[in-house]
Amino acid sequence: MSVGLSIYDLLTPVAVIDETIMETNVKVAQAYFDRIGRNFRPHIKTHKIPALASLQIAAGARGINCQKISEAEVFADAGFTDILITFNMLGRERLERLKALNAKADLQVVADSDVVVDGLAAGFTADQPLKVLVECDTGGGRNGVQSPAAALELAKRISSCDGLVFHGLLTYPKASSETAVEAFFSETIDLLKQAGLDCVVVSHGGSPSLFDSDLVSSATEHRAGTYIFNDRSMMRAGMCDLDDCAMHVIATVVSRPTETRAVLDSGSKALTSDLLGFTDHGLIIEYPDASIASLSEEHAVVDLTKSEKKPQIGDKVRIIPNHTCVVSNLFDRLVFHRGGVVTRIETVAARGKVV
Amino acid sequence: MSVGLSIYDLLTPVAVIDETIMETNVKVAQAYFDRIGRNFRPHIKTHKIPALASLQIAAGARGINCQKISEAEVFADAGFTDILITFNMLGRERLERLKALNAKADLQVVADSDVVVDGLAAGFTADQPLKVLVECDTGGGRNGVQSPAAALELAKRISSCDGLVFHGLLTYPKASSETAVEAFFSETIDLLKQAGLDCVVVSHGGSPSLFDSDLVSSATEHRAGTYIFNDRSMMRAGMCDLDDCAMHVIATVVSRPTETRAVLDSGSKALTSDLLGFTDHGLIIEYPDASIASLSEEHAVVDLTKSEKKPQIGDKVRIIPNHTCVVSNLFDRLVFHRGGVVTRIETVAARGKVV
Repeated sequence: MSVGLSIYDLLTPVAVIDETIMETNVKVAQAYFDRIGRNFRPHIKTHKIPALASLQIAAGARGINCQKISEAEVFADAGFTDILITFNMLGRERLERLKALNAKADLQVVADSDVVVDGLAAGFTADQPLKVLVECDTGGGRNGVQSPAAALELAKRISSCDGLVFHGLLTYPKASSETAVEAFFSETIDLLKQAGLDCVVVSHGGSPSLFDSDLVSSATEHRAGTYIFNDRSMMRAGMCDLDDCAMHVIATVVSRPTETRAVLDSGSKALTSDLLGFTDHGLIIEYPDASIASLSEEHAVVDLTKSEKKPQIGDKVRIIPNHTCVVSNLFDRLVFHRGGVVTRIETVAARGKVV
Repeated sequence: MSVGLSIYDLLTPVAVIDETIMETNVKVAQAYFDRIGRNFRPHIKTHKIPALASLQIAAGARGINCQKISEAEVFADAGFTDILITFNMLGRERLERLKALNAKADLQVVADSDVVVDGLAAGFTADQPLKVLVECDTGGGRNGVQSPAAALELAKRISSCDGLVFHGLLTYPKASSETAVEAFFSETIDLLKQAGLDCVVVSHGGSPSLFDSDLVSSATEHRAGTYIFNDRSMMRAGMCDLDDCAMHVIATVVSRPTETRAVLDSGSKALTSDLLGFTDHGLIIEYPDASIASLSEEHAVVDLTKSEKKPQIGDKVRIIPNHTCVVSNLFDRLVFHRGGVVTRIETVAARGKVV
């Protein structure tokens, strides 16, 4: 893998990123948030690469979003200072690492229960307090308090702790649920105001309805990751076209056992098994009527029944994955290119950081 | 992560391996193959760790099975000399690496088409020939020639190449298809005999029906990977019980947003999205009636509706993954233990080796 090579000369499977498309994706999203006057905080989970977060910050983003302490440490070591970790922090060792990070970065974390707040409270003191957002379940069905009243109660509890600062609200919403999110946020903000609690940040998120973020008028910031590369799920959501997808997995046709079957060398170790509601495993750009019917770890079995064109053994194809973020987590390095010529190779610095 | 710690004191999510169960799994499978008088060639994809392949060899296994050249290189560097690579090798750079490997190991590869054979033939010479098995599609629906007649033709082509040696047949079968596999193999062996071609190796494979391998009487060896750890899919196949599963992913309950919902910190970055026919994402040992209903990258959303017992925030649980091999590929290290006390930590040396 060397700069100057054609991406078609690389050993496959390989995940490649089109620099030009990526730069456009970053600019277009940032321009939208600039226009609606809202802070934009990119989620690094999609790329896990400090150089790409720098590109996002240079375009105008305010700070970064990580999901785990181990990811945040990678980015803090790379010089990022405004970091939001959107995962409940539990356990002595993790809290010690969080405290060390809070000493060198402007850190924010989330909480959605008394247990998490009390754990945080025990680890921090008033001389170097930790900013905490209350995570709200506005319909996403994952973490989060279930009602504005519960959000208020948790905000009060955070405020009452010497080592913690109640800093605002956060949600990871269901796609296209802006009305529900705004209703939850605005009701909670009213309750907080009545209780005399400052709510500095109101953090909305998600790529699938990124350009509808203005419909959540209470929000002060938006978090999103996928938009930088885009993928098949973003195409389905109407958020991008084929030409806006910066990540392709290049694979080689290694077998043509039958007239209607091709086998690629991009199995679940390259594409992951994430279906995200699809019934097959990615879009082959050169064979859009073919279907990646099944994956094993190293094989992708392609059904060519509906594809008039049939590939030959040795042909290389480009696949738009169903879900780009999970692909980044499988490769040690991503290869960048312009017009098919390799420009740089970046180590996926926060790959595999799960704790 | 240190030797002597309790596995419950480790940061989660973490994949842990019970040494005692693993050793028993290795012994039981080897004893079966010893009893039926068949070579056993473990597939390293499940663990990707040389020390574990050494355990399998010490128990009596003959050689190892890798899927990709990059995996085989890791194991050759670790001193393994009898290596079968069960993936079509294509492309100049890969063939050069294959040639280098063939100079230091007793290597076998597969082919299922003229294109693959001709590619191999161009890269090897008679002074250091490469052993090639014909891969047969006996119903698995992945790679492989489609008929005994086609197997014969490809064997002849291999035989006619100076740099190649036709060495035998191989299949990755559909589960519980021993009759079909034996029919394909025995018919092909007859054809080869009539053509005067030596068939040294007849390689059958798969963990899901490992203990039925004797039903394929023509086979000279069996390849399998999953059996060393076992997993939920092996339990479903009736090949093992809960107590035979050596790999657990330990996760922490990080949120209890509602009476019937818990959220764990083991998302698809820890468990993968591999369903393998299941409708949920792993078995929680402590809460067998709970269901891991959905995964995002860092969150596992657990439906507690049918579980009378409900976990609390901060509780740790052990999960038997649907598919153990793909979990090993996500973690940089696996943690080993006896009775819950950490015995060693092994780097997953061939993790992420996709080319």
